[in-house]
Amino acid sequence: MTITITAFERSPDGGKGLARDTRVRWALEEVGQPYAVRLVSFGAMKEPAHLAVHPFGQIPTYEDGDLTLFETGAIVFHIAQHKAGLLPDDADARARAITWMFAALSTIEPPIIELQTAKFQEGDKPWAKARMPLVQDRIHDRLKQLSARLGDADWLDGGFSAGDLMMVSVLLRTRPSGLLDEYPNLAAYVARGEVRPAYQRAFAAQYAVNKPPAG
Amino acid sequence: MTITITAFERSPDGGKGLARDTRVRWALEEVGQPYAVRLVSFGAMKEPAHLAVHPFGQIPTYEDGDLTLFETGAIVFHIAQHKAGLLPDDADARARAITWMFAALSTIEPPIIELQTAKFQEGDKPWAKARMPLVQDRIHDRLKQLSARLGDADWLDGGFSAGDLMMVSVLLRTRPSGLLDEYPNLAAYVARGEVRPAYQRAFAAQYAVNKPPAG
Repeated sequence: MTITITAFERSPDGGKGLARDTRVRWALEEVGQPYAVRLVSFGAMKEPAHLAVHPFGQIPTYEDGDLTLFETGAIVFHIAQHKAGLLPDDADARARAITWMFAALSTIEPPIIELQTAKFQEGDKPWAKARMPLVQDRIHDRLKQLSARLGDADWLDGGFSAGDLMMVSVLLRTRPSGLLDEYPNLAAYVARGEVRPAYQRAFAAQYAVNKPPAG
Repeated sequence: MTITITAFERSPDGGKGLARDTRVRWALEEVGQPYAVRLVSFGAMKEPAHLAVHPFGQIPTYEDGDLTLFETGAIVFHIAQHKAGLLPDDADARARAITWMFAALSTIEPPIIELQTAKFQEGDKPWAKARMPLVQDRIHDRLKQLSARLGDADWLDGGFSAGDLMMVSVLLRTRPSGLLDEYPNLAAYVARGEVRPAYQRAFAAQYAVNKPPAG
């Protein structure tokens, strides 16, 4: 059975690996699961055929025979549940790793997305400059707490897990802003994620699709 | 073994049931699991003792013997994994129900929280009025899509699941704004959630803690 995911035909980040398909590619690489990719244009994402797969008109999606999933968190969790390598066997440790997946998506990512919204959708508004410090402060509130919890550990709870995969991916989205540089242990944590061979393969695969045209 | 959750000593919503402990109470009620509640003041939430349990200084948390969890999504998922009643047995249906949990928390809730932030943290700013339509439009974008997907079904994917519990809980947060009234099928969906006996018991339990003083 071939597993097929969807990705942007052309990612808005030009191949920086910040689109959410990279997270799913990374999870698939960590567990050694081959996959196919169907590229979707911005136009096609809002068409009925894609909306039938993803009700919110986004990528990635995940298709495996009769099963169709959307939502990056749900897809990564599904992969982690069914293949070894992303969740510990011990039940309590597993529950804690899943907690970090939710923390990445529900607590850390929303203020980071809000920063991108402030820049790209409200950057031309009269309030853009005055409002920016508020938006950045909300990210700092969370990064401070996350930095305090991580301390000098390599990963958030024992060995590398789907929780770390998701948290590193979310933190990577702050890279263009430079905000992460103020938290050396978080920057080192993200770097530990990036050097993993599975991440490298995932990054290369999305870059092959999205790299800027030569010349 | 007693399961203990944390909740606000005094919820900012004055007993409307919108604090996140209501979601966990609801899940516990759906599966018939008794629980104890430890109330936490706003001051204590930022103290080391609570931060050791919840690194982001929030409620709810979940303690069951040696296991301590935070993040509402992770707690509800943990309850749903270990007790019957919130996730279907069929593996594919289960994966889809989990998808809706993530969709509620990652896709639908962030713009709703942003509306509350715009009102309560930026309501006195010079841009508050001019910016509000943008913030509301982002919610409408999602509610339109969700409404289209739900159609005239009772629940998001077959029978009631943890995905519905989370989605109804998230949509309830829009009630003070009146935004939900424009989507009759979503309003009816939320009402179906609210009349469930388990929700009623969860609501009553949080109301007993938070109801406004008499007189």
